[in-house]
Amino acid sequence: MPRPIVFMSSVWDPKIWTDYMRAINPSLDIRLYPDEAKPVEDIHYAVVWRPPHGALKTFPNLKCVFALGAGVDAIVSDPDYPRHVPLSRMIDDTLTQAMTEYVVLHVLHNHRRQRDFDALQRLKKWRYLSVKRAEDVRVGILGLGVLGQDAARALKPLGYQLAGWSQSPKDIPGVASFSGQDGLTPFLQRTDILVCLLPLTPRTRGILNRETLSKLPKGAALVNAARGGHMVPEDILALLDEGQLSGASLDVFEPEPLPPESPFWTHPRVTVTPHAAAATDPRAIAAHVVSTIEGMERGVPPSARHLVDLAKGY
Amino acid sequence: MPRPIVFMSSVWDPKIWTDYMRAINPSLDIRLYPDEAKPVEDIHYAVVWRPPHGALKTFPNLKCVFALGAGVDAIVSDPDYPRHVPLSRMIDDTLTQAMTEYVVLHVLHNHRRQRDFDALQRLKKWRYLSVKRAEDVRVGILGLGVLGQDAARALKPLGYQLAGWSQSPKDIPGVASFSGQDGLTPFLQRTDILVCLLPLTPRTRGILNRETLSKLPKGAALVNAARGGHMVPEDILALLDEGQLSGASLDVFEPEPLPPESPFWTHPRVTVTPHAAAATDPRAIAAHVVSTIEGMERGVPPSARHLVDLAKGY
Repeated sequence: MPRPIVFMSSVWDPKIWTDYMRAINPSLDIRLYPDEAKPVEDIHYAVVWRPPHGALKTFPNLKCVFALGAGVDAIVSDPDYPRHVPLSRMIDDTLTQAMTEYVVLHVLHNHRRQRDFDALQRLKKWRYLSVKRAEDVRVGILGLGVLGQDAARALKPLGYQLAGWSQSPKDIPGVASFSGQDGLTPFLQRTDILVCLLPLTPRTRGILNRETLSKLPKGAALVNAARGGHMVPEDILALLDEGQLSGASLDVFEPEPLPPESPFWTHPRVTVTPHAAAATDPRAIAAHVVSTIEGMERGVPPSARHLVDLAKGY
Repeated sequence: MPRPIVFMSSVWDPKIWTDYMRAINPSLDIRLYPDEAKPVEDIHYAVVWRPPHGALKTFPNLKCVFALGAGVDAIVSDPDYPRHVPLSRMIDDTLTQAMTEYVVLHVLHNHRRQRDFDALQRLKKWRYLSVKRAEDVRVGILGLGVLGQDAARALKPLGYQLAGWSQSPKDIPGVASFSGQDGLTPFLQRTDILVCLLPLTPRTRGILNRETLSKLPKGAALVNAARGGHMVPEDILALLDEGQLSGASLDVFEPEPLPPESPFWTHPRVTVTPHAAAATDPRAIAAHVVSTIEGMERGVPPSARHLVDLAKGY
């Protein structure tokens, strides 16, 4: 029997997850945090989503922590995270695929002025609006990890001029690579539609602010499918009103749900979706967690592709 | 000097076109219909868009008619079209590209329930709506010519299950082929999002009607980027109200502009755009017409790829 697992989530119903995991391997010993997770010395694995800070360090014999999603900012921001314990995050092809759909939809939505056409429809106005050719539109992807690369793959056949920005240089055919602090300004200066798919780390928090977004060409559009914490909302709203930004498709906010008093809801140039770009598929994730635990029980380490670099935070 | 050309358009300002053509070859002898197009025996070429029925047959020595767009229904429906004269239509890569953008945008718009999310935004409601995975969504393209094949190419990387229907069978990797009258019902039965890119001919007029659209699975969506004449509007409106259709993105109507009293404007499940999916690029078209005329003057026939099969009507 695999050694005990603690399940810890401040937002999700544990039963869905534990049922999926037990359906795959009925012999799993899954204990809910905090009441069942005793004695703490017995716990070898933690399956978590937004765990309370300080909770993980109370388990002295953890061999691996599994995050039930792709973004691990809520975990690595725990100052008491036990840094010798590997953190495995999800790379869920279903999530990647859904995120790519959202990005392609909203790049096109902004490029093709669908927001303006919708406004004309409400006025019953039949009026031609000029639309650029895709080959004249420069899309820039902030973050060229699994999500950013997949978005680029699906945007490419539409003919856009593609570039990406990431911490370290990437070599992706058809995607101009910019990297590091020095690369950010030239990347922004050549970007008509900015797509944010960055991990949220102390370095990227607030990166979508007046200073950076003012480097975009006037009338650029923003698509944020990453985290609300990347944005400085009052800067974005002011830049929309000034015409520096022509539109924004925003799926993520801080806090969520977006409060009713947020001006994003009613701004005529903002398209709000309720963190709906991509949902994790619980079955796929449960299968991944269980097979990794089964492997570790046989001495196989978790795959490097899934391990978070705790120094970088993603 | 090339032999005389008549320019004939009931909708477009001739000056734009004649200026582009003369910029390429200043020696062209372009005469505007009807006043300048005399004597009729001298005219060897006709450059037309929606010419008045009966007008072309008045020129006895025509060698070629050039349509200034991809859809030639307004020309071949002329009962007096001189059927011995080759009709060359445009295959404009810019138009194809723009049409593909519209199709990908509106397939995603319907699949990803953007119309519903927009409605939630207007109510300031943060609510999760379930969205299918692309691999579980069956997109069906009516018409697998240049436009349909290009749309399929750009939809493929999103992971949809693709099929197409055309008069004759096509062999396109990753696209299930249905053809002929017998193939229409099975094609419709497997299609969750129906994209119409057909030419408008007597056989396809009204093809989007209650009988055909009732063969789609309940809750299917319609994207029409072809011609208004493909639709029976009252059938589509009734099927939307009955829930047989969950939504429609419509770019084309009969008549155009869509009259203010049309229920399409205000239907909550219809997205209207003003024939904006794809515009012909006058410069590219002018260049093509001029180079074809120059070739014909040297004895080179117009390219078969551009010639309309007058029996089929496209």
